[in-house]
Amino acid sequence: MVEKNGVRPGGRSARIQAAVHQAVRQLQQQEGQGELTVPAVAACAGVTPSTIYRRWGDLAQLLSDVALERVRPDGEPRDTGSYREDLRAWLEQYIDELASEPGRAIVRDILACPAPGNAGKCAEFIRRQLDVIRDRARARGEPVVDSDTLIDLVVAPVVYRLLFSISAPSIGHAVGLLDHTLGSAALRRAG
Amino acid sequence: MVEKNGVRPGGRSARIQAAVHQAVRQLQQQEGQGELTVPAVAACAGVTPSTIYRRWGDLAQLLSDVALERVRPDGEPRDTGSYREDLRAWLEQYIDELASEPGRAIVRDILACPAPGNAGKCAEFIRRQLDVIRDRARARGEPVVDSDTLIDLVVAPVVYRLLFSISAPSIGHAVGLLDHTLGSAALRRAG
Repeated sequence: MVEKNGVRPGGRSARIQAAVHQAVRQLQQQEGQGELTVPAVAACAGVTPSTIYRRWGDLAQLLSDVALERVRPDGEPRDTGSYREDLRAWLEQYIDELASEPGRAIVRDILACPAPGNAGKCAEFIRRQLDVIRDRARARGEPVVDSDTLIDLVVAPVVYRLLFSISAPSIGHAVGLLDHTLGSAALRRAG
Repeated sequence: MVEKNGVRPGGRSARIQAAVHQAVRQLQQQEGQGELTVPAVAACAGVTPSTIYRRWGDLAQLLSDVALERVRPDGEPRDTGSYREDLRAWLEQYIDELASEPGRAIVRDILACPAPGNAGKCAEFIRRQLDVIRDRARARGEPVVDSDTLIDLVVAPVVYRLLFSISAPSIGHAVGLLDHTLGSAALRRAG
């Protein structure tokens, strides 16, 4: 059995990854990110710095990988029995998790490494959750909106405010965008 | 005469800022960002590392400040004589500048420092350009959309694709979002 990222669970490689990720999370709790260094992480994880450089390349990639694990969904989005309510519940949870200072730091870490892979995976997590909600709604016979439209008109404005505003995006504003999108899209019976 | 950031042009403080910014830009051209360090920047700028730490706090803040200067608009957006065409021309230029690998790196640098000030200023640059375009259109008697709506429904999806997609945002897609927003907003005669 091999995980998606090619790491065999329980193998030496997986144990190193788990120890290094755990060390990063522990040091992040203890001190500001400015103090995080590869030698400090290596000492805390009980590996050599060269193990970290060989596997992750640099600190930005390691921090991005740790942050990506934090945004990986725990399971399927909540099933409330209605398309709009499922989307609304998902949005509320998403904003709640990411609008905090630790939440913003996680998004910053994901984006901070030049390789776009983790940012793409982060967007893919969101798309899959929206696809699950859409497929459930379709099975109930509800009209749906394609996930690209929801990402453009609801998710993107929330993320933009999260990243570029001093104030957090509000759930009321996000739900307003959702209702506007569902209203105009329902007319088109997209999907 | 004092600039907005409180630095007197031509003064010692302004000269240090100019030299350090110039050193960062020079080193960024010479080598990958991974190699950029405060001592290297200080040596190149002819100042001590402690000058840099005292003034910018850390490397992330310095890189963010340099990147912010690169997204500061050179002047007013182009005046084509029509609201839609002004917005379209602005969008094309914006995507053209930011969708390149150096453009993405600039946005990453702005976002990478924990203090949200520069990200907010970056968003403010965009808003001011949209406000200028709106005010010109109003003076011509054209119906306009408020800048918040344009930011939510056109700018945010472009920036989201810029940050989270492997592929660059396309101008065609962005113009489609613009036309959809102008179409539904014109009905409301917002503004």
